[in-house]
Amino acid sequence: MDTTQKLLNLIDADHDTAVGRLVDWLRIPSVSANPAHAADCVRAAEWVRDQLVGLGFEASLRQTPKHPVVVAHHPGPGNGAPHLLYYGHYDVQPADPLELWTSPPFEPVLVDGPHGKRLVARGAVDDKGQTLMWIEALRAWRQVAGGPPCAITAVIEGEEEIGSPNLAAFLADNKAELAADVAVISDTGMWDVETPALSTRLRGMCYVQLDLQAANRDLHSGMYGGSALNPLNLITRILGELHDAQGRIQLPGFYEGVAETSAEQRAAWQKLGFSEHDFLGGIGLSVPVGERDRGPLERLWARPTADINGIWGGYQGPGSKTVIPAEAHAKVSFRLVPGQDHAAVFEAFKAFVRARLPADAKATFQVFSSSPGIEVPGESRFIRAAQAALAEEYGRPAAMIGCGGSIPVVSDLKSILGLDTVLMGFGLEDDQVHSPNEKFDMRCFHGGTRSHARLLAKLAGG
Amino acid sequence: MDTTQKLLNLIDADHDTAVGRLVDWLRIPSVSANPAHAADCVRAAEWVRDQLVGLGFEASLRQTPKHPVVVAHHPGPGNGAPHLLYYGHYDVQPADPLELWTSPPFEPVLVDGPHGKRLVARGAVDDKGQTLMWIEALRAWRQVAGGPPCAITAVIEGEEEIGSPNLAAFLADNKAELAADVAVISDTGMWDVETPALSTRLRGMCYVQLDLQAANRDLHSGMYGGSALNPLNLITRILGELHDAQGRIQLPGFYEGVAETSAEQRAAWQKLGFSEHDFLGGIGLSVPVGERDRGPLERLWARPTADINGIWGGYQGPGSKTVIPAEAHAKVSFRLVPGQDHAAVFEAFKAFVRARLPADAKATFQVFSSSPGIEVPGESRFIRAAQAALAEEYGRPAAMIGCGGSIPVVSDLKSILGLDTVLMGFGLEDDQVHSPNEKFDMRCFHGGTRSHARLLAKLAGG
Repeated sequence: MDTTQKLLNLIDADHDTAVGRLVDWLRIPSVSANPAHAADCVRAAEWVRDQLVGLGFEASLRQTPKHPVVVAHHPGPGNGAPHLLYYGHYDVQPADPLELWTSPPFEPVLVDGPHGKRLVARGAVDDKGQTLMWIEALRAWRQVAGGPPCAITAVIEGEEEIGSPNLAAFLADNKAELAADVAVISDTGMWDVETPALSTRLRGMCYVQLDLQAANRDLHSGMYGGSALNPLNLITRILGELHDAQGRIQLPGFYEGVAETSAEQRAAWQKLGFSEHDFLGGIGLSVPVGERDRGPLERLWARPTADINGIWGGYQGPGSKTVIPAEAHAKVSFRLVPGQDHAAVFEAFKAFVRARLPADAKATFQVFSSSPGIEVPGESRFIRAAQAALAEEYGRPAAMIGCGGSIPVVSDLKSILGLDTVLMGFGLEDDQVHSPNEKFDMRCFHGGTRSHARLLAKLAGG
Repeated sequence: MDTTQKLLNLIDADHDTAVGRLVDWLRIPSVSANPAHAADCVRAAEWVRDQLVGLGFEASLRQTPKHPVVVAHHPGPGNGAPHLLYYGHYDVQPADPLELWTSPPFEPVLVDGPHGKRLVARGAVDDKGQTLMWIEALRAWRQVAGGPPCAITAVIEGEEEIGSPNLAAFLADNKAELAADVAVISDTGMWDVETPALSTRLRGMCYVQLDLQAANRDLHSGMYGGSALNPLNLITRILGELHDAQGRIQLPGFYEGVAETSAEQRAAWQKLGFSEHDFLGGIGLSVPVGERDRGPLERLWARPTADINGIWGGYQGPGSKTVIPAEAHAKVSFRLVPGQDHAAVFEAFKAFVRARLPADAKATFQVFSSSPGIEVPGESRFIRAAQAALAEEYGRPAAMIGCGGSIPVVSDLKSILGLDTVLMGFGLEDDQVHSPNEKFDMRCFHGGTRSHARLLAKLAGG
C-alpha cells in the first residue's frame, strides 16, 4: 500500500475522533469582536497550539495588542520539498441573534442533512473546521511517516473576524521566521458538494462605523418636531443615497481603478453554469440587487458593493416613544475588488457623508477593517499540485472560482512575505457563515482532510 | 379674609408636603409602554385614587384591556355652578437611555435651578406633577370650604404615553356617568416662567412601526453582497425619501385638508416674540429643519411633521460583523394638524412604502396611536375664567398659544362627550419631557396649584 493510500485509510478510520476534536475546539466561544471573550480567545489559541505540539511541532502563542497568534514550525524531512505556510483563524463571529439558533451556538451538535451528518456551531466551517482539516492531514502524516513530507509553518490568528488589525505588523516583525515558498489557506468554498474548487479572487473590504450627533439631548417630538434636526431622518437620507437607481455606488471616485472583467474570464465563469435563481432561492429571494448591467458571478466576485450591516438609534422597545433622539449610528461596509484603493474608499465615504451633513450635525467615523481586493495566480506548480490532489479525491477537476468575501491576510502574505496563496476551501453555499445555525457538512470536512493529505504528497513529489 | 386668599395661604403653607406627595407618586415607575411595569401602573392608579378618596371623592379603578382608568366624582355644593371634568394621566414615558440620567429616574430629587428648586424624575411634569396641581387645589378647597365649589369628575388614565388605545371606548361606554360642562387639562406649557399660557391648538399623531423582511436568514455580506437584497439599505432608501429638499413630506395626499394659518393668527403669534434661535440654542442646535417657507411657530404648531423615532437592524455591538440581516425596523410618527385625516395618513404611509418595495421584501405595519390635530375655542366663559385666574396669579395676561404635542383625549372629549377643553398647563420648554432628566420647576407647580384654586373660585362665581 502506498503512502497516500495509508494516509487516506487512516483519515477514514480516524474520522469520528477528528470530529470529536473539532467539537472540543468549537465549545470555546472565541468571539474576537467582544472583549468579554478575550480569555476564550486565549483558550482557543492554546487548544490548537497543544494539537500542533502533539504532532511534533514547536508551537507557541505570540501576544499582539489584542488576541494572540499561534505560530508553529516543523522542519519536515529536509529533502528540498517546498516549505508551506498554512494560515487559519481560531476566532469566530458573534453568535447573535441567539434566539434564531436551533441549538446553542457553542454546544456543537451533529444533525442529519441531505449530504449526511453536519456539525452545527458558530465557527464550524469559519474557520475552525476548515483549519482543523489540514491539522488532521498533518496528524495522518505524523502517524504514517513520522511527520510531514515538507517543512511546515502554521500561523493561526485570532483577529480575522475583526479585520486582522494586528496581523500585518506581526508578519512584518517576524518576516525571517515566517519565510516559506507558498501559503495554503482553507477558508473558502467548494463549487458544490461534489465539485471541488480553488479560488483565485477575493474581495477586499472597508468596514466603517458612522456616528451622527444632532441635539445635545433626546427631544420630545411634539415639542421640537418641525424645528429640530432629527439624526435618524438624516442618516436614512444620507445612507439612502449610497446607490443610484441602477445599483451603482455613489461615493465620489468609488469605481476608480476597478478592472473590467476580461471576456475570457466572463466566458470561464459562464461555463460554471451558475444559477442565481437557485442561489437566491435558497435564501427565500428571487430578484438580484447590485449593478443592473453586470452578470451574477461578476457582481459577486468582481464588482464592489456597499452594504449597511447595522443601524440603530432612538427607541427600539415595544410600543411607542415620541422621541427625536440625539444620535444615530450605522455600520457600513464596502466589498472591494482588485485595483480599488481601500484607504481612498474610507476617505470617499467621509466626503460622501460630509457633503450631505447640515451645519448642526456632527459625524464621526471609525474604520474597523480595510483591505484591498486581491487576485492570486490561477496557474503555478502549487496550483497544479492542488488541482491534481482535488481531481484524484473528487474524480473531477476543480472549478476555478472567485470569492465574494475577504481574507485580508492573503494580500499581506504577498506584500510582506512575498508568498502566493493556494485557496483550497471546502465550505458550501448553505453553511450559514456569519449567520445563526452555521454548519459544516462532515462529508466536506472529511474530503477536505483527505485532499490536504494528498496535497502534501503531491508537493513532496508523490 | 376671602376664600381665595385662604386657599392661597393654605397652598403656600402646604407646599413642602405637596411636593412630598408628588415624590411618593413619582417613585412608582408606571411606564405604560413596558408590560413589565403593568403592576406599577396599577399601583400608581391606586395611589391617586386614594388621594381623591381622602378629599371626599367617590373614586375607583376601572379596568381596561391594558391599564386601569381612575374615575372620581364629587357632587360639589349643588348650586348650579358648572360641572368640571379634569383629565390627567398617571403613566409615564420609558426612562431610557438610563445612562444619561444624573439621578435614577424613579428616585425623585430636588435640585437647584435658575428658578429655584426643581424636581428631577420621570413623570415630574408629564403628567403626574401637572395632575397633582389640580388635586392639590381640590385639597385646599376641601380644607377651606369642605369641598370643591363645583361638581367635579376626574378621569386619570394610564395609557396616554402609548396613545390612549382604550380611552375612547371607555368614554363612550361611560358617557352618562362622565357628563360635565367643560374639561380642564394641565399637560401643556407656560409661555415662559413668568408668563402663563392657554393652549388652543394641539397637533395629532399617527405613530407607526414598519418591519421589513428580506431573506429568510441573516447572510454573509461577502458571499451574498451584490446579489441579495439588504433590508437596511432598503429602509434607508425608503425613509430617506420622506422629505423633499424643501422639507415637505412626500406621502401621497399628506397635506390634504391642512388649513392655511390665517393672517390674523400669524400676526398674533408674531407678537409673542418667539426666538427660534434661543429655542434651538437651548438644545445645542442652530439651523431649523422643516418646511423652508413657513415661520417657526407655524412649523411647530400648525404644520405636520414626519420623524423617525427609532430605527434598528443588523449588528449593533462593538466592532464589526459582516452581515446582511434578514430584517429592518423603524418607528415613524407623523404630527398632524386640524383638517388632516389621521387614518388616511396611515394608509398613505403604507402606500408610500409599498411603492418603493422590491418584489422580494415584505413590509408589515403596526399603528400604535392615531389621533387628529385639534383646535379648542379661544373664547368662552370657561376660557375667560381661566384668563382671569391666570392674570391675577401672574400679574400679566396669559399667552394664547399652540402646542406641538398631542393630547388625543381632547378630541375624544369633544366628539364623544361633547366637551370643550381648557388647556391650562405649567410646563417649561426645558423640562426635558420624554428625555433623560425630566424635571418640573416647583415654582411652576406652586403657581399652577394656586391658579387651579383660583380657577375654581372664578367658575363658582368668586
